[in-house]
Amino acid sequence: MSFAPAGLITLTTDFGTEQPFAGIMSGRITRLCRDARIIDLSHGMPRGRPDLAGFWLGRAWREFPAGTVHLAVVDPGVGTGRGVLLAIAEGHVLLAPDNGLLPEALRDCAHPRWLAMSPALPARLNLGPLSHTFHGRDLFAPLAAALASGALHPGEFGTPATPSDPIPLPGPLRDAEGVHGRVLLADRFGNLFTNIGAALVEGCRQPTVEAGGCEWPLLTSYGAAPQGMPLALINAFGLLELAVNGGSATALPGLAEGAVVRLRDGLIA
Amino acid sequence: MSFAPAGLITLTTDFGTEQPFAGIMSGRITRLCRDARIIDLSHGMPRGRPDLAGFWLGRAWREFPAGTVHLAVVDPGVGTGRGVLLAIAEGHVLLAPDNGLLPEALRDCAHPRWLAMSPALPARLNLGPLSHTFHGRDLFAPLAAALASGALHPGEFGTPATPSDPIPLPGPLRDAEGVHGRVLLADRFGNLFTNIGAALVEGCRQPTVEAGGCEWPLLTSYGAAPQGMPLALINAFGLLELAVNGGSATALPGLAEGAVVRLRDGLIA
Amino acid sequence: MSFAPAGLITLTTDFGTEQPFAGIMSGRITRLCRDARIIDLSHGMPRGRPDLAGFWLGRAWREFPAGTVHLAVVDPGVGTGRGVLLAIAEGHVLLAPDNGLLPEALRDCAHPRWLAMSPALPARLNLGPLSHTFHGRDLFAPLAAALASGALHPGEFGTPATPSDPIPLPGPLRDAEGVHGRVLLADRFGNLFTNIGAALVEGCRQPTVEAGGCEWPLLTSYGAAPQGMPLALINAFGLLELAVNGGSATALPGLAEGAVVRLRDGLIA
Repeated sequence: MSFAPAGLITLTTDFGTEQPFAGIMSGRITRLCRDARIIDLSHGMPRGRPDLAGFWLGRAWREFPAGTVHLAVVDPGVGTGRGVLLAIAEGHVLLAPDNGLLPEALRDCAHPRWLAMSPALPARLNLGPLSHTFHGRDLFAPLAAALASGALHPGEFGTPATPSDPIPLPGPLRDAEGVHGRVLLADRFGNLFTNIGAALVEGCRQPTVEAGGCEWPLLTSYGAAPQGMPLALINAFGLLELAVNGGSATALPGLAEGAVVRLRDGLIA
Repeated sequence: MSFAPAGLITLTTDFGTEQPFAGIMSGRITRLCRDARIIDLSHGMPRGRPDLAGFWLGRAWREFPAGTVHLAVVDPGVGTGRGVLLAIAEGHVLLAPDNGLLPEALRDCAHPRWLAMSPALPARLNLGPLSHTFHGRDLFAPLAAALASGALHPGEFGTPATPSDPIPLPGPLRDAEGVHGRVLLADRFGNLFTNIGAALVEGCRQPTVEAGGCEWPLLTSYGAAPQGMPLALINAFGLLELAVNGGSATALPGLAEGAVVRLRDGLIA
Repeated sequence: MSFAPAGLITLTTDFGTEQPFAGIMSGRITRLCRDARIIDLSHGMPRGRPDLAGFWLGRAWREFPAGTVHLAVVDPGVGTGRGVLLAIAEGHVLLAPDNGLLPEALRDCAHPRWLAMSPALPARLNLGPLSHTFHGRDLFAPLAAALASGALHPGEFGTPATPSDPIPLPGPLRDAEGVHGRVLLADRFGNLFTNIGAALVEGCRQPTVEAGGCEWPLLTSYGAAPQGMPLALINAFGLLELAVNGGSATALPGLAEGAVVRLRDGLIA
């Protein structure tokens, strides 16, 4: 599926919203592509964690219409020689530093087309000298503007590439006791996303969930547990989630990012 | 007054801005209604507090042009059987879970028209299966898009209803000593909004304000108090507010949400 | 250069994003100028610090196309007699309380045209009575809408004025030991912006940087230092910046806002 720009750009960064870094990127985009519509997915990604930014971009990009440019800048290697990567996927374009972010975002996408930025592209687009600390403004914003306006066709971005994937998020493992998963992240509500997908849970006849030293009853909604009580459920992203109805699972001991989550089939054990 | 969609949607949630939940809603809306303009009122509403979200939506919705769709998702009952409520008010549409949010928002609106969502509506709009944790994406965003685009007329939303109103914000009481009010909330500046309206204050010939064990001089602006000193004033929302000029009233003891605020008429006592 | 409105408005405030104060301003603007495009630069400016808001607006406004209206409301004097200031600069309009914000933002702009709001303007625009706590909604939003729509020409805003500039950000000083600078602020990453510009650094043949009791090697990018190690660099805003690669410089002792930063020329000493 080819790419026909819809004039839409999404932004995902770890810049925060206190300093106007994201607003500055929007300004640069707007100056170059007056009619671009910019939607902020999040500027609160965990600092310097391309893997988690990729996870969230992966949960979001398909919501937008085909023709959208998704720009993600979580870039601990800014100013070094790290590359710039573009993916064409299902009629969307995704653009980010080549640091594992996009492979995480497109983990479930069958055949994205990967391109590494041609070193000659910034000069060809007259981008001027790049700073050493803010490529979101100097490089990525103008690239996104050019893609969204149609001034730059994604096929002219560079050469076919294999993305680097330094530290992927952990996947679930199977062992003699069942499924050995991990807590990936906590959301604002203190709900814990695990890396255990719904299919693994559905594959158990009597699934039991253990984490942080206790068992989590598997229910269908937060409200199915008594107020203040823990539960597990399949969340809106198809992942096993640990939660406390009306409370926060992160308040329980031993349940930070990376904590082990065990899924067992009671009929087997 | 009927509703003619202006293509504007406001969003009010407790989803925060770290995870891209609100951006995902904007994506879903944009895919369904390409030209919708989306304005984020706040995604930082206190978690699971429909009453306070309703308070703030009530302070905001009339600022927008008639024809705006106001979507508010503070939804501790997501995934349970709680209903979905729509109000038509002064040419606007307001949409939220049926949990007291909208009645609080429209407390000062004479005759909103209330409709409960028809159970058949999601299927009629081809919404597909709903997740158990994110109706903001699966249900509310597409409903708002359909209302903003004109694809769904609000009159076809469902049947006339009486909203549930489980826990309204407290109102001021009159007793022998005058007015017995409460602190409703603190804003970013540490200013305390009370539930005592300007008319009650204006009804006193010599109003005195007591809270947290001290008296608050009633002035007209923050700057009318010396730097660092407490004061009371009538704020921009017509409510008695407790503040510290250049400081924070929440730093004073005994002044959290729910603290008692007494208004007395010095000429009577 | 005159001003031709482009229908773009940027917002910079210290209102935060928890309460919908900024959204309320956007609503008021939208009601008055339906097609205005509003871009939030930041609503997380440090509370009551017009100087820092001016600093950031100064880093951002030129990113936008000429014809943009930049509205900044950091307004500790709201409700007092403080004036309202407008600047026309390089085809842009900037609007703020007259409290030093705009002079800081336009410090590097050769000849802005300054105008003080005519006291008759609010009545002429039918703004109605102003509250004592929220001129962002009652005064500044409608002014910005009128400027962005062309209903108000900036030349009709008021009379030529000299802005007040009560507490400017400190500038670097030269003394016998070299350059005596200060930490201006920390960003989300814990990077410390100093007030020492690139030209001062480039004027040293062997520049050395001292702050917080240690020396900071001057490198070109964060990644040029070992992981977890401190460095200094020239940042994307042309300022000397202190950082820790993959860490936070604010975690080091003695490095809050205002801390002294010394730049010396090793060849001279």
